Amino acid sequence: MNKAKVLIIVGSESDLEVMSKCEEVLARFGISCKLEVSSAHRNPQKTVKLAETACEMGYKIIICGAGMAAHLPGVVASHTTLPVIGVPLKGKYLNGLDALLSMAQMPAGVPVATVAIGEVGASNAGILAAEILGLSDKDVKKKIEKFKKKLKRK
Amino acid sequence: MNKAKVLIIVGSESDLEVMSKCEEVLARFGISCKLEVSSAHRNPQKTVKLAETACEMGYKIIICGAGMAAHLPGVVASHTTLPVIGVPLKGKYLNGLDALLSMAQMPAGVPVATVAIGEVGASNAGILAAEILGLSDKDVKKKIEKFKKKLKRK
Amino acid sequence: MNKAKVLIIVGSESDLEVMSKCEEVLARFGISCKLEVSSAHRNPQKTVKLAETACEMGYKIIICGAGMAAHLPGVVASHTTLPVIGVPLKGKYLNGLDALLSMAQMPAGVPVATVAIGEVGASNAGILAAEILGLSDKDVKKKIEKFKKKLKRK
Amino acid sequence: MNKAKVLIIVGSESDLEVMSKCEEVLARFGISCKLEVSSAHRNPQKTVKLAETACEMGYKIIICGAGMAAHLPGVVASHTTLPVIGVPLKGKYLNGLDALLSMAQMPAGVPVATVAIGEVGASNAGILAAEILGLSDKDVKKKIEKFKKKLKRK
Amino acid sequence: MNKAKVLIIVGSESDLEVMSKCEEVLARFGISCKLEVSSAHRNPQKTVKLAETACEMGYKIIICGAGMAAHLPGVVASHTTLPVIGVPLKGKYLNGLDALLSMAQMPAGVPVATVAIGEVGASNAGILAAEILGLSDKDVKKKIEKFKKKLKRK
Amino acid sequence: MNKAKVLIIVGSESDLEVMSKCEEVLARFGISCKLEVSSAHRNPQKTVKLAETACEMGYKIIICGAGMAAHLPGVVASHTTLPVIGVPLKGKYLNGLDALLSMAQMPAGVPVATVAIGEVGASNAGILAAEILGLSDKDVKKKIEKFKKKLKRK
Amino acid sequence: MNKAKVLIIVGSESDLEVMSKCEEVLARFGISCKLEVSSAHRNPQKTVKLAETACEMGYKIIICGAGMAAHLPGVVASHTTLPVIGVPLKGKYLNGLDALLSMAQMPAGVPVATVAIGEVGASNAGILAAEILGLSDKDVKKKIEKFKKKLKRK
Amino acid sequence: MNKAKVLIIVGSESDLEVMSKCEEVLARFGISCKLEVSSAHRNPQKTVKLAETACEMGYKIIICGAGMAAHLPGVVASHTTLPVIGVPLKGKYLNGLDALLSMAQMPAGVPVATVAIGEVGASNAGILAAEILGLSDKDVKKKIEKFKKKLKRK
Repeated sequence: MNKAKVLIIVGSESDLEVMSKCEEVLARFGISCKLEVSSAHRNPQKTVKLAETACEMGYKIIICGAGMAAHLPGVVASHTTLPVIGVPLKGKYLNGLDALLSMAQMPAGVPVATVAIGEVGASNAGILAAEILGLSDKDVKKKIEKFKKKLKRK
Repeated sequence: MNKAKVLIIVGSESDLEVMSKCEEVLARFGISCKLEVSSAHRNPQKTVKLAETACEMGYKIIICGAGMAAHLPGVVASHTTLPVIGVPLKGKYLNGLDALLSMAQMPAGVPVATVAIGEVGASNAGILAAEILGLSDKDVKKKIEKFKKKLKRK
Repeated sequence: MNKAKVLIIVGSESDLEVMSKCEEVLARFGISCKLEVSSAHRNPQKTVKLAETACEMGYKIIICGAGMAAHLPGVVASHTTLPVIGVPLKGKYLNGLDALLSMAQMPAGVPVATVAIGEVGASNAGILAAEILGLSDKDVKKKIEKFKKKLKRK
Repeated sequence: MNKAKVLIIVGSESDLEVMSKCEEVLARFGISCKLEVSSAHRNPQKTVKLAETACEMGYKIIICGAGMAAHLPGVVASHTTLPVIGVPLKGKYLNGLDALLSMAQMPAGVPVATVAIGEVGASNAGILAAEILGLSDKDVKKKIEKFKKKLKRK
Repeated sequence: MNKAKVLIIVGSESDLEVMSKCEEVLARFGISCKLEVSSAHRNPQKTVKLAETACEMGYKIIICGAGMAAHLPGVVASHTTLPVIGVPLKGKYLNGLDALLSMAQMPAGVPVATVAIGEVGASNAGILAAEILGLSDKDVKKKIEKFKKKLKRK
Repeated sequence: MNKAKVLIIVGSESDLEVMSKCEEVLARFGISCKLEVSSAHRNPQKTVKLAETACEMGYKIIICGAGMAAHLPGVVASHTTLPVIGVPLKGKYLNGLDALLSMAQMPAGVPVATVAIGEVGASNAGILAAEILGLSDKDVKKKIEKFKKKLKRK
Repeated sequence: MNKAKVLIIVGSESDLEVMSKCEEVLARFGISCKLEVSSAHRNPQKTVKLAETACEMGYKIIICGAGMAAHLPGVVASHTTLPVIGVPLKGKYLNGLDALLSMAQMPAGVPVATVAIGEVGASNAGILAAEILGLSDKDVKKKIEKFKKKLKRK
Repeated sequence: MNKAKVLIIVGSESDLEVMSKCEEVLARFGISCKLEVSSAHRNPQKTVKLAETACEMGYKIIICGAGMAAHLPGVVASHTTLPVIGVPLKGKYLNGLDALLSMAQMPAGVPVATVAIGEVGASNAGILAAEILGLSDKDVKKKIEKFKKKLKRK
């Protein structure tokens, strides 16, 4: 069984740099993660398989970063019972507003937990994952508490 | 083998009324179609199957109507080599702008032919389908020519 | 100690009707919740107190529904280590787009898991909460699995 | 008779660079195309003539790239029975959102198959054209099937 | 020769009600006008002919009302040397913002004088026409002066 | 009496560069113009005086370029019976969309003929002015006709 | 000398109903106000005069409600040294977004204190006025303190 | 007791540069101010304390600059009876439109006086503060009058 708790999926290699913020944040909370590149549209079978097997693989949370039409987190959410976090990424033209609407406006039955556009969202997706894992993992919980206190002292 | 040339898929029963405009238009051009209700998110397997088998079933074109995050035509397009037409439908709040961006802003490799929001789009999706079928079907071509002439006489 | 697992906070009594969708969904998953009316701006101390004590009260998740500037989930998130879900509600004029941006675009360090505008979002917030609670509660997990299967059969 | 199957029209010379993506894609599918520069507004007669004669010239599909008010594909569509694909291009200020709305929101009777803004749209217009031509051309169909498979292996 | 000074063109019969405000205003300034229904897309030849012959017919100004993609004033402007005023009309979904951008964002060389969305714009198009005609018609000039004074006394 | 036919007013010196396109275009049509820098908000009396005296000074048309809230053409239009053309200019943040709405959405009774954002609009304002002046000036009319023909030959 | 401390100006009679919320709020704080109807564009002289004489008339604050291009508070602000509060009102089409941008995006040197669209803004303009007057009026200060406490108890 | 009249709060150190325009303007009017860095979300207790004690510390006005969800001025306004001015700052993606809506669209009972996005807003916040202080401080009043006269002479 896989020890990573969080599965990060990005739609294309060009999204890796922004989403590396997410890995950094997870590392800070001692949470191991695995990163996959799989487009909802160009690699639909791989994406569906990643989503369908994530739970039995031992993952607790799936974080998806995608731009433009940004269906990735929605497709993943429709094939899993795990919570899915979506990070809207900026495409070349519409500043990520297209991706934000494509993620947040999911239909009834299949939620995506949408965070901010770009780096801030990537980093906040990591914190949100830690908050969720902290509900049943005391180590992570303590680290989150420390992190929030430190934030306030800054 | 199936005689219908166009497969229409809508995300939910509430989309049927608007998309009936599309059926009417196709009927006017003598094009038979089949209608399926299958949400990209709530019925992902059914949706994928409809897309994957559409070509061998003899369909030439797939028209998808969906609102909000509106991933339906994108998911379908990623599982077929047929041309896919997307009709953005109005959700309760954002007037269909969310659906329009979710369809038009598809990533490289997987186009969706996006038309106008709502009834106008539903009807234009039918005409676009007829224009495409008219490329290799003389009967449809003649009807399209008549239709355009009549439009001008109005 | 409190047995409710989810704390729902709305900014004003007029938000109760839409957010009742959230209670219904949680009930379907056998998740007890408590509802509070407390505006981030008109009742800041009450809001801060609800947020600060939620964890020790035994809540696992906080869901906030708010319209317009919609600071409620952000204020709550800044005073808790629990995951916070935000439901943007439609104000009289801007169709909830103002609330959606005010929730999703939270700064680094303090994420809000934003879902769709209005009833759909209220209902999806409940499902997202169930997915999160299902990570450590087998009963909820089973119900989520059943729910997703049923969704697909529909 | 002309052997090119696709007629590409751009509104101005400055649009050529982005639309060259479209030519590249068509070449990959072995589809010959012809490129014309003709503004809907500055060269209306030329544009109308290109549209009116395209069908008898043997073209199967017309692809138009234009920015700002972006009437080009709409004007062309009103003078032909061929399917018309529109690629919204970024103007200096509104990021292509003006062009996207001017193309997608065509009135009933005269559809434009709208794709994404800019390079992605230019490339997807080529793929969409190939999908349409593939309906009656086995060589193109095979190349599309290969292309989609390769996309998935990436 | 025609005695009407202003040619009003609307894209469809459903636009007549809103544009009747324009006729009323012109009548108040003693300016005769003629009204034509001719869609830029459904009746392109008629539209082009109206535009091309307007000047020799003795018209001084062309006012076009249209919704959605709203190409009408742009098409007309590309076939005349007369000043063209555009009134963006509300379609069913995007509140006229699509029409406003489609008119105002005309490319270099072919201006459309765009006014406000809907009834206000229809009425202001009439006043703008009167201001223009007033430059060479003393009667109209006096009426405009009176109108502006009366406006201020209200 | 003043021989310039067009009065150009800009809100600040930083708008001069973009609006110089307008002067160039007018020069091409042999139309003399005068340029004033006067902000609607910072120099209200000067602005009002320019507007109130423009007609008796012999000007036929006033062109105003302004950014952000962009009230300049509206203020000018409320103090003159001459036609007023507005050129929305890009501010630092909202790409000129704020200026476009502030000009086009003028209330009933006081129209502003709004053109495109930025350089294109500046140049089109000059052409629109020439089209208006051409109604009663044969030399300008001939130049406009030549210009439009040349445009088409390009 | 005038005893009213706040001058409320609206652009048209149709704005009176929404702005009556502002009067109600001021009355609750014991602040007398005077209401004038004067459009920035249709009654420019009256508007300028109201603004220029407001200070010597003894007014402390000017509140302006206006829709669409909504120049009223900007024009007023350019003719007074008093603080000016702007309430953007909904026009028929763009939900007040046009008015919000026309007020908030004022150029350097001439601020308008912009509040929310519609009734909420009208009421908040009254509270903001009370907060400002409370700086030098102990009675108003006490009422504001009571009001804020009561808000929290609700 | 503190001699500074204006308390400026920014959400993060990166906002200091833009907000320094505000300090400069206040200095020009001889108004002393104090600057604090305190995020509404990362330092909620500090922020609440700054707001709650500002009045007794002798401050008259609080100016807050913040980007993205931009809750800072709203949180501050909910803990003080002083007038609060909000300056929306540009985040990395949405050009400050998110911050503008998050500030202007405050709910009934808790107004934020919102000014323009970025540097212009920072500078205008200072002028607005001076206009407010000028109501009870003759020196500031004179300086404001001089400033406005000078503006007009420019």
